[in-house]
Amino acid sequence: MQKTNIGICGLGTVAGGVINVWQRNQALLAQRMLRPCNITHIGARRDNPACDTDAYTVSRDIFAVVNDPAVHIVVELIGGIEPARQLVLQAIAAGKHVVTANKALIAEHGNELLAAASAAGVELRYEAAVAGGIPVIKALTEGFSANAIESIVGIINGTGNFILTEMRDKDRSFADALADAQRLGYAEADPTFDVEGIDAAQKLTILAALAYGVPLDASQCYVEGITHISVDDMRYAKELGYCIKHLGIARSNNHGLELRVHPALIPKSRLIAHVDGVLNAVAIHGDAVGPTLLCG
Amino acid sequence: MQKTNIGICGLGTVAGGVINVWQRNQALLAQRMLRPCNITHIGARRDNPACDTDAYTVSRDIFAVVNDPAVHIVVELIGGIEPARQLVLQAIAAGKHVVTANKALIAEHGNELLAAASAAGVELRYEAAVAGGIPVIKALTEGFSANAIESIVGIINGTGNFILTEMRDKDRSFADALADAQRLGYAEADPTFDVEGIDAAQKLTILAALAYGVPLDASQCYVEGITHISVDDMRYAKELGYCIKHLGIARSNNHGLELRVHPALIPKSRLIAHVDGVLNAVAIHGDAVGPTLLCG
Repeated sequence: MQKTNIGICGLGTVAGGVINVWQRNQALLAQRMLRPCNITHIGARRDNPACDTDAYTVSRDIFAVVNDPAVHIVVELIGGIEPARQLVLQAIAAGKHVVTANKALIAEHGNELLAAASAAGVELRYEAAVAGGIPVIKALTEGFSANAIESIVGIINGTGNFILTEMRDKDRSFADALADAQRLGYAEADPTFDVEGIDAAQKLTILAALAYGVPLDASQCYVEGITHISVDDMRYAKELGYCIKHLGIARSNNHGLELRVHPALIPKSRLIAHVDGVLNAVAIHGDAVGPTLLCG
Repeated sequence: MQKTNIGICGLGTVAGGVINVWQRNQALLAQRMLRPCNITHIGARRDNPACDTDAYTVSRDIFAVVNDPAVHIVVELIGGIEPARQLVLQAIAAGKHVVTANKALIAEHGNELLAAASAAGVELRYEAAVAGGIPVIKALTEGFSANAIESIVGIINGTGNFILTEMRDKDRSFADALADAQRLGYAEADPTFDVEGIDAAQKLTILAALAYGVPLDASQCYVEGITHISVDDMRYAKELGYCIKHLGIARSNNHGLELRVHPALIPKSRLIAHVDGVLNAVAIHGDAVGPTLLCG
């Protein structure tokens, strides 16, 4: 059987992790894959010392991966909008399937990219763009495909959840908890994207588009971050039997579709109130399956 | 495009539910399905008053569905071992794909049936056999397929979980909580299968076979039920900060694969300790994804 060749663009933390898992679990993967697959070509401006790439062709130009006729599937892990968008479009135009973990790219340009993939008869997959390793996109599009989705409620930003958990459990201020998150590598030097809810809004937009069959449009989402939450808020919530979590909520009602990201009080009796630290969780309520929670 | 015709064998609670969801969500399904599908033929000894079957051919002989050349996919929902096993084998021999929710059939005869399906080049799918509507089999075989699975820990019998939750929250004895479960329709008149852990052992066997690539063999599983748990056990657990849950555990270690079903003390800080009532939950720990929990 012909081997499927995979090209990887980018060699940062995520790409290095993918390559390391691939190498570590090679024997398992060989058993599980329906057809043999190989990583053959990596495109990255610089090496990643945590990652052994001796077995692969390494190009300093990421577009060399897309232009390699032997590559069947391009995995885009460079992040950001450009040149990721050009890279994905060029891969699609060359008849290659594309896998990306780039939530910003999908949230902002997903309509264009998915239409291009559909026209070219190739797949564009982005499971890792939302909630990392939890197969929530697969659950929505396949597992729950017989369900009308009543609501999606998610803790979909690990950095924000870590900060809120630290504030609650250690009586720390937002600024102190954020500094901890930065020290531990959970938060960027500029944390705006995470703590202002922009990251969560992009992920929610992707989930809502899949669940409700609407075009991707993150500008339709109400967005409020966690920067104004105080230690007092946390204490009052606890006294009253609640947890404060930063939620992304998509809900269809008689007036249409509601998309919002904001901090919320959750009764402690609810399972999602116990999803702490850097964990993510997505609660999906389907009309047939009822309430579910995917967490990881 | 040619329509795919689905035949359903059985018309009990589960089959009636499938048909009702199918009818209710027809417009959604038409959008989501990659090719048009129709239910065409139902085989059942008697009607189900909760379910309108006027649009379909209804046969009193379930084998008429399997022998119908227009049916492409057979959905087996009659339950039990025989004639379900014969039905599935005959459908496979006729070149039809089979979907079943029959965990006992898969746990006891899955090796034979899966080999027959593979030899015939058809699919045998059984997502609903474990944890109902939660796509845990899809997660194990697809979503987490790059992971070495370190452990699976599940609350996979809703009846047992309901009884334990009632005992804990309402200080009721096992016998009283079981009687409640029977009154509410959560437990059978003969509850052995659920409360002695046999049902959980069958489900765990199915999950372990998928995760670790071993043959199905429920006899290799240590099985202990919940019938000996007292209200005092519940009180002591609570005092010490624990919950008693009935778990199915599969874990690979240096000596091989461990499969066991028994009640266990779980610290209240663990998410799975908060999965109450008739809910199911499966915690899967993969070497790449880390800890996950699927609940519903």
